[in-house]
Amino acid sequence: MKKVAVIMGSDSDLPKVKPCIDKLREFDVPVEVHVYSAHRTPHQAHEFSKNAKDNGFGVIIAAAGKAAHLAGVLAANTTLPVIGIPVKASALEGIDALLSTVQMPAGIPVATVAIDGAANAAILAIQMLALSDDTLSEKLAKMRAKMTEEILEKDKKLEY
Amino acid sequence: MKKVAVIMGSDSDLPKVKPCIDKLREFDVPVEVHVYSAHRTPHQAHEFSKNAKDNGFGVIIAAAGKAAHLAGVLAANTTLPVIGIPVKASALEGIDALLSTVQMPAGIPVATVAIDGAANAAILAIQMLALSDDTLSEKLAKMRAKMTEEILEKDKKLEY
Amino acid sequence: MKKVAVIMGSDSDLPKVKPCIDKLREFDVPVEVHVYSAHRTPHQAHEFSKNAKDNGFGVIIAAAGKAAHLAGVLAANTTLPVIGIPVKASALEGIDALLSTVQMPAGIPVATVAIDGAANAAILAIQMLALSDDTLSEKLAKMRAKMTEEILEKDKKLEY
Amino acid sequence: MKKVAVIMGSDSDLPKVKPCIDKLREFDVPVEVHVYSAHRTPHQAHEFSKNAKDNGFGVIIAAAGKAAHLAGVLAANTTLPVIGIPVKASALEGIDALLSTVQMPAGIPVATVAIDGAANAAILAIQMLALSDDTLSEKLAKMRAKMTEEILEKDKKLEY
Amino acid sequence: MKKVAVIMGSDSDLPKVKPCIDKLREFDVPVEVHVYSAHRTPHQAHEFSKNAKDNGFGVIIAAAGKAAHLAGVLAANTTLPVIGIPVKASALEGIDALLSTVQMPAGIPVATVAIDGAANAAILAIQMLALSDDTLSEKLAKMRAKMTEEILEKDKKLEY
Amino acid sequence: MKKVAVIMGSDSDLPKVKPCIDKLREFDVPVEVHVYSAHRTPHQAHEFSKNAKDNGFGVIIAAAGKAAHLAGVLAANTTLPVIGIPVKASALEGIDALLSTVQMPAGIPVATVAIDGAANAAILAIQMLALSDDTLSEKLAKMRAKMTEEILEKDKKLEY
Amino acid sequence: MKKVAVIMGSDSDLPKVKPCIDKLREFDVPVEVHVYSAHRTPHQAHEFSKNAKDNGFGVIIAAAGKAAHLAGVLAANTTLPVIGIPVKASALEGIDALLSTVQMPAGIPVATVAIDGAANAAILAIQMLALSDDTLSEKLAKMRAKMTEEILEKDKKLEY
Amino acid sequence: MKKVAVIMGSDSDLPKVKPCIDKLREFDVPVEVHVYSAHRTPHQAHEFSKNAKDNGFGVIIAAAGKAAHLAGVLAANTTLPVIGIPVKASALEGIDALLSTVQMPAGIPVATVAIDGAANAAILAIQMLALSDDTLSEKLAKMRAKMTEEILEKDKKLEY
Repeated sequence: MKKVAVIMGSDSDLPKVKPCIDKLREFDVPVEVHVYSAHRTPHQAHEFSKNAKDNGFGVIIAAAGKAAHLAGVLAANTTLPVIGIPVKASALEGIDALLSTVQMPAGIPVATVAIDGAANAAILAIQMLALSDDTLSEKLAKMRAKMTEEILEKDKKLEY
Repeated sequence: MKKVAVIMGSDSDLPKVKPCIDKLREFDVPVEVHVYSAHRTPHQAHEFSKNAKDNGFGVIIAAAGKAAHLAGVLAANTTLPVIGIPVKASALEGIDALLSTVQMPAGIPVATVAIDGAANAAILAIQMLALSDDTLSEKLAKMRAKMTEEILEKDKKLEY
Repeated sequence: MKKVAVIMGSDSDLPKVKPCIDKLREFDVPVEVHVYSAHRTPHQAHEFSKNAKDNGFGVIIAAAGKAAHLAGVLAANTTLPVIGIPVKASALEGIDALLSTVQMPAGIPVATVAIDGAANAAILAIQMLALSDDTLSEKLAKMRAKMTEEILEKDKKLEY
Repeated sequence: MKKVAVIMGSDSDLPKVKPCIDKLREFDVPVEVHVYSAHRTPHQAHEFSKNAKDNGFGVIIAAAGKAAHLAGVLAANTTLPVIGIPVKASALEGIDALLSTVQMPAGIPVATVAIDGAANAAILAIQMLALSDDTLSEKLAKMRAKMTEEILEKDKKLEY
Repeated sequence: MKKVAVIMGSDSDLPKVKPCIDKLREFDVPVEVHVYSAHRTPHQAHEFSKNAKDNGFGVIIAAAGKAAHLAGVLAANTTLPVIGIPVKASALEGIDALLSTVQMPAGIPVATVAIDGAANAAILAIQMLALSDDTLSEKLAKMRAKMTEEILEKDKKLEY
Repeated sequence: MKKVAVIMGSDSDLPKVKPCIDKLREFDVPVEVHVYSAHRTPHQAHEFSKNAKDNGFGVIIAAAGKAAHLAGVLAANTTLPVIGIPVKASALEGIDALLSTVQMPAGIPVATVAIDGAANAAILAIQMLALSDDTLSEKLAKMRAKMTEEILEKDKKLEY
Repeated sequence: MKKVAVIMGSDSDLPKVKPCIDKLREFDVPVEVHVYSAHRTPHQAHEFSKNAKDNGFGVIIAAAGKAAHLAGVLAANTTLPVIGIPVKASALEGIDALLSTVQMPAGIPVATVAIDGAANAAILAIQMLALSDDTLSEKLAKMRAKMTEEILEKDKKLEY
Repeated sequence: MKKVAVIMGSDSDLPKVKPCIDKLREFDVPVEVHVYSAHRTPHQAHEFSKNAKDNGFGVIIAAAGKAAHLAGVLAANTTLPVIGIPVKASALEGIDALLSTVQMPAGIPVATVAIDGAANAAILAIQMLALSDDTLSEKLAKMRAKMTEEILEKDKKLEY
């Protein structure tokens, strides 16, 4: 199975990125995690991204805050789908990271999820991989069914 | 090859969605286009999405403006990856559509591209399909190389 | 008397929704509360809304945060008035929920109240029901008079 | 049948308010239209609102731009439901009118629709009146069915 | 000397309004403080404002949060200058109160100060009264000189 | 009578400032108009403001766009009331000018009116001068009465 | 004298960047202009920046719109000062470009000027070079004096 | 070596400005720190700035919050490069300070860094001075290399 790379701009983002890693493991998707900064380790970020496809990766997930260039910089060096997690990490509540991630110019898309939406980034990556992996696809359907059940259970037990 | 569905909330969005359709055809990806509204044809939107996988679709692209629920509503009924194009269609310059599309709750991601980023939605869909399709993958690499060349050409010819 | 439905997207919203339920009970309006998510239980949300009128409901109140599609999704399946409470539940202070709730396209309105404005949602529902219920109408007038008195009392006692 | 009042803060708002008046007439709802400003004719605004119920009105719709106090000021003097249409009428694209209309304090709700959402304000008023008027209720259901048909028709004819 | 009225929309605003009252007293300006709500005590707010000039007031200061209509409503009933203090009292950090206060339509200005800018509202009122009161004018000059001195003192003592 | 100074940061602002000058003249208030920039003529801006009181001015009105420092810079050198008109003059629709004008630190208020609210700036200045000028006060009352009449006239003639 | 590089993300930005080039030439600063995209020509952007110092450049100016990563990407590969011009090029009025440019993480600053502030970017670059170039410094002083004179001239001639 | 001036609008900003001072000292750049307010000590701010070049300064860094005029006011009186640090100091999360600092009119640039970006302001100043100081330039290169190493070290040690 193709691997998913999870790259964060700073190791201080790890707690926010953790739900993404956990969700990927829950689906038994092989995951590799790195701290690479678009600005402080531009060379490594470029190299990683340029070689990602050859190194067995299928999807790259990038998490960064403030002027979040990481997802865009990684996307610029690969044709693999790149998912961006805008991280709330500044005075501006993450709106800077959201706009820096999602407003990509024509030619180089970044699949952007919600601010701090780490778990959804993982699910989105799994959905991509599931396009050619029926086992993953079934696991997704099960997760969805379980989510529905949990809510209906909560609905039944709701005390108001 | 899996088909890509392009769903728009109103036929008035067609001019904005056209670059998406064109780009998909440029890559010879089979595409099916529909006008379904999350609010005015909720039943059809749900049915389409629920059956999309069985009907041979691999990716769903949804374009909508204002309180843009379309991508989320489609995503709620399928485990296929859903890409959202927030359309600028109100006084608020598309920020309403962007937030309505990207800020999805945990469990149901929407891969959001830039406001009016129709061409990028297509490229993102192609990147996903290319995960298991080497021909598409090569086409992507060629497109990328061409884009680079074009810019370098423009750089050479720049008169200032 | 027609019932009021209070639907929340997640049971974690209950503390924010409580003032709405309390206010409805204070007016002896029959209330039914559910946890239905537009994205995680789309089928149930649709079914509930489609049958709400036949099941004796007069007004539906929906509370949701982030990309708050719940009120719109419920409104799409009924001609009953739907009231939306945008819940502050993300980094963005509820502005995402507000825009996702209020910026509905032509044809399907959502009567939107303030961010976290649960009590006002209840009062608005009561005002609607009071259009054909003189007892409710009188209770509203009394509540209003009491509110005025309380402020004037506070004004008198103000120490500055 | 109870009348609907449509109040606008300035006669320059009439073109934006027209779809609201038209929609009410389409449903044969008796409508009375006035130009009253919360700031330039405060006395008349208050008097109108205070007597609206006794004068046979069921719902009040208020349209205003910028620091849009009109809906709130009318709501302060009646227990009838008041619907607010934030009008885009300033440099700020209507976000000032939206926040001034929707962010009402506890006790006095304003049922807010989208910026320039005049037609939806009418539909919302009709939905309220339809709670005790089966003819209106049927008309709403027909309008909804027609909207659905129109979209499906457009979907069929879509050339892309 | 003419009195200054300080009106707040809710007694919970008192801690935020206190610096305004204190500053007025520091300048020996007679001050009268009230809790009047534009929405919950509209009659009293109107009456107060209509009679303020005859009752010896020179300036009215109004503090309110959220959809802050208070300053506008008071200004609508008097030709005295009205100063608005937008109070941060909602999820939206006071931007709703600021826009509701400052974006007044032509004809009825509100002199708006910063969000939670209570002390400045007092100074502004004093500056207005000082136009015909040399003692106040001198006190203002002294306060200004003292402010300058304090900063220069801090500059000298700064340890870095 | 005390004069009113109208200072604009650039002569390109004149069309936006004109309604302010016209309104002051309509009230026979002596007005002096200057182009002084906080950044390009800081010395002249400071000198003007420092001497304004001695030169017979009662109120200073400042109009500027973008990072609108003019009102604050003038206010820093005088104890006269300073009114700020935020001018829409950039990509950001005037929100930059509004925040730069209104968010003054404690000690130095600027009485801020709406974006491009030139006429209201004049009325506010007149209200300040009217505190010690009964003729002005009467003129204000007449203007207000006329405004009310005009709206009521428009209300009567409204064709809908 | 050290050269100034002006890099734009797209040749469509040239009209907006032109005032920057013109101003640099007005000061006889050697300028080199390129079209390099952070996303479409990442390699060239990196190489240019990495070698800029050795190639005789003193300052790099980068202009880009939307998710404007260009300035940050250039800054990541050089220790020369990098000036960012956020270009208004999307639905969002340039606020996306501003935040993407200015909100850089600790370690890699970008000296950001106003949205579409091309001329100021040139002046800022000249100010930097003037730190070790007295001729430039004198030219700056002259430009400043001329600007002041022009405004005072306009002030004198103002007809109102 | 030329000195760097660090000016803050209020001594309460010192904790936020400290990383700037520390970074300058780390590079052995002579630094002088002052508390000068654009509004409360306008004379001192002007005088400091006017004489800064003659007094041996090369760069001025200004930190201020809310309607942050300080950087602009200092820039108006010198041709030295002025760096602005927008300080988060109000309800509005620093967006007011950012826009007040960065949106400077043509002719007078302020090199703006991120909200609370004190360390980057220092680095930017050092980059400017390094244009004619090879020792500084080498120190910058070393700092950059160290930053890269630290991240790579963190990448290696990352436990996930």
